[in-house]
Amino acid sequence: MQQHITLDHGSGGLASQELLFKYLLPFLNNSVLNELEDSAVISIGETKLAFTTDSYVVDPIFFPGGDIARLAVNGTLNDLAMKGASPVCLSLGLILEEGLRLEEFERLSRSLSEAAEAAGIQVVTGDTKVVPHGKGDKIFINTSGIGVIHCEPVPSYHRIQPGDCILVSGTVGDHGITILTSRSGLKLETSTTSDTMPLHRLVAALLEEVKSGLHCMRDPTRGGLATTLTELAGRSGWDFEIDEEAIPIHSSVASACEILGFDPLYLANEGKCVVFVAPEHAEKTLQLMRSRHEGVSAAIIGRVMPEKNGRVILKTAIGGKRLLRPLTGEPLPRIC
Amino acid sequence: MQQHITLDHGSGGLASQELLFKYLLPFLNNSVLNELEDSAVISIGETKLAFTTDSYVVDPIFFPGGDIARLAVNGTLNDLAMKGASPVCLSLGLILEEGLRLEEFERLSRSLSEAAEAAGIQVVTGDTKVVPHGKGDKIFINTSGIGVIHCEPVPSYHRIQPGDCILVSGTVGDHGITILTSRSGLKLETSTTSDTMPLHRLVAALLEEVKSGLHCMRDPTRGGLATTLTELAGRSGWDFEIDEEAIPIHSSVASACEILGFDPLYLANEGKCVVFVAPEHAEKTLQLMRSRHEGVSAAIIGRVMPEKNGRVILKTAIGGKRLLRPLTGEPLPRIC
Repeated sequence: MQQHITLDHGSGGLASQELLFKYLLPFLNNSVLNELEDSAVISIGETKLAFTTDSYVVDPIFFPGGDIARLAVNGTLNDLAMKGASPVCLSLGLILEEGLRLEEFERLSRSLSEAAEAAGIQVVTGDTKVVPHGKGDKIFINTSGIGVIHCEPVPSYHRIQPGDCILVSGTVGDHGITILTSRSGLKLETSTTSDTMPLHRLVAALLEEVKSGLHCMRDPTRGGLATTLTELAGRSGWDFEIDEEAIPIHSSVASACEILGFDPLYLANEGKCVVFVAPEHAEKTLQLMRSRHEGVSAAIIGRVMPEKNGRVILKTAIGGKRLLRPLTGEPLPRIC
Repeated sequence: MQQHITLDHGSGGLASQELLFKYLLPFLNNSVLNELEDSAVISIGETKLAFTTDSYVVDPIFFPGGDIARLAVNGTLNDLAMKGASPVCLSLGLILEEGLRLEEFERLSRSLSEAAEAAGIQVVTGDTKVVPHGKGDKIFINTSGIGVIHCEPVPSYHRIQPGDCILVSGTVGDHGITILTSRSGLKLETSTTSDTMPLHRLVAALLEEVKSGLHCMRDPTRGGLATTLTELAGRSGWDFEIDEEAIPIHSSVASACEILGFDPLYLANEGKCVVFVAPEHAEKTLQLMRSRHEGVSAAIIGRVMPEKNGRVILKTAIGGKRLLRPLTGEPLPRIC
C-alpha cells in the first residue's frame, strides 16, 4: 500500500482525486468544498461571490507563450470565470527559493503586472516567503481570486442534462506539450506555444447571449480534456458522447504528440473552456466563440446522452467507440 | 550589489520591504496593495470585505503548541481580524513534496479541520500540487481568507494619532523561540510553546466595547513586535514611546532568549495583536483583554507622541532611551 505522496498525486487525475477523498475531504467535510468546482460559490448578504485558489509550480518558469506569473493570473481568473463570475481582485502568495536571480524575479513581476492589466484585474494583497536553496524551486506562486456572480442560476455540473451540446473553445494540448518540450529541451520541427489566456470576457459574452441556456463550464487544465470530461460525467451521472474527429488539435501539437507518444486529450490547457449548452443554443454559442480571439478554433465536440452511467464514450476517428478514462498512472508533473 | 534572493528577503524585516518596494510594487502599483496592510479592504456593492493571503513554510512542520496547518488557519484569520473583519471562509493551497508520508498528511488534515472548527470557519476551495523530492520541503500551505467588515471606520495605521495608547494582547516571542529551539533540537530546561491562536473573537469583543476608539491593530508575526512597531511608526509618521519593562515576556522565553542570544522583540508571534486605542479607552481595553483567554497577559506598553519623525523610542529597563530598528541582516528563516 502507498505510504507516501507521489508525483501522481499532483497529476490532476485519479490519484489526485483519491488523495482528496481519502486524506483531506473527510476532515474538512462541508458542502461548498465538497462540490470541488473550479470556484466556491458563497453568499454574503445579497451578493454571490466566487472564490478560488491555485498554486503554480510549473517547470520551467519561462516557456513559449508565457511564464509562471502569467499562468498564475490567467489560471485563477479562469477558475472564477467558469462559475460565470466577473473577476474582482487577486491575492499573490510567493514562495521564493534562495538564489533566485533578482533579474528573473523582476521579469516575473513585470509579466504579472502585464497579465493583470490585460485582464483588467488588480492584485490587492500579497505575501512573500523565502525558503533555503534546495527546499523549493526558484518560485512557486499562489493566486486566490474573488469574483462577483451576476448570473442566475450559476453554471454547474448539476445543471448538465441529456441533449446538451458539449463545446470546447479551441485547440487542446497546447500548454501541456509546450511545457513538456521546453522542459526536455527537445527541438521539434514545428514549435508549440502555451495557450495561457484569460477567458472571463469570452464567458461574459456567452452568458449575455445564451443566459441560462449555458449549463456548465470547466477549464480543462491538469489532466486535460479527457480528465475534465470524465469528472463531469461522473459527477453529473450522465453519459457523454464525444466525436474524436471534432476535437480541435493544432497540427504542431498533434505531430509533437505523435513523436513523443502523448495523447493530447490528457494534456493541460490554460486558455480553453469546455461548455455545456442547451441544444437550441449550440450553433449560436459556436458562432459567438468563433467570432472572438479566445474562441477562433471552437468546436462542438459531443453531446450529453440520456443514459445515466456517468461514462464518456469516445467515437474514434476510425469509427469505433471506446470509454475515456481519467488520467492515471502517468505523471506529468508540474505542468502548471 | 545583491543579485539574488537571500533568506533575509523572507525575514519580514528591512530586506523584505526592499524586495517589495524595488522589485514588485512598482509593477503592480495600485492603491489597495500599496497600503500593505494585513488584509486588503475591498468594497463590493454595499459590502466591505477584507481579503488576505499567506503562505506557510515553517520548519519543522510539527512543533510544541501547533503545526503548519494550525498556523495556516489561525494566521490568515488573524490577518482578517486586524482589519476588524469577521472571517467568512478560507481557501487552501497545498504544495506537497514527493515522499511526504501520508500519515503526516492525514495528521495535518485533521489539525486543519480542528483549527477551522475551533475558529468557526470553513475551508471552501482548495488546490493541491506535488513537486519532486528535493524541490520542496514536505509541505507548504497557502491560505487566503475573506472576511466581512462591519465596523466603520476601519482600523488602519492612518488613524493612529498622538495620545493613543499602545497595547499588546500578551507575551511576545513565544512562537519564534519555540520554532528556533524545535528546529535546532535544543533541549532547554524550561519549555516554550507556540502561541498560535485565532484572535477574531477577541477583536470582535474589543470593537463592540471600544468602537471607533480602536484606531489600529496589527499582529506582530515575522520580525516580531519591534518590526511591527517600526513599520507602523514609519507609515503613520508619528513617534511611539515604548516602555521596555511593560512588554510582557514569558519567563521561559526570556531565559531561552538569554541563552541563545535572541531579542524577544524581534521574534515572531502567532496569537498576539498590537492595538492602538484613544487614551480614554485604554484602561477598558486592557481589562477586556485580560478578561479573555486570548489576552490574559495583555499590557499597555506605550503611547503615540506628538512628534512626527516616525521613530520608535524604547525606554529601556535601566532608564535609558534607544531607537528601535526593524529586523535587519539577521535571517530567522521559515518561522511561519
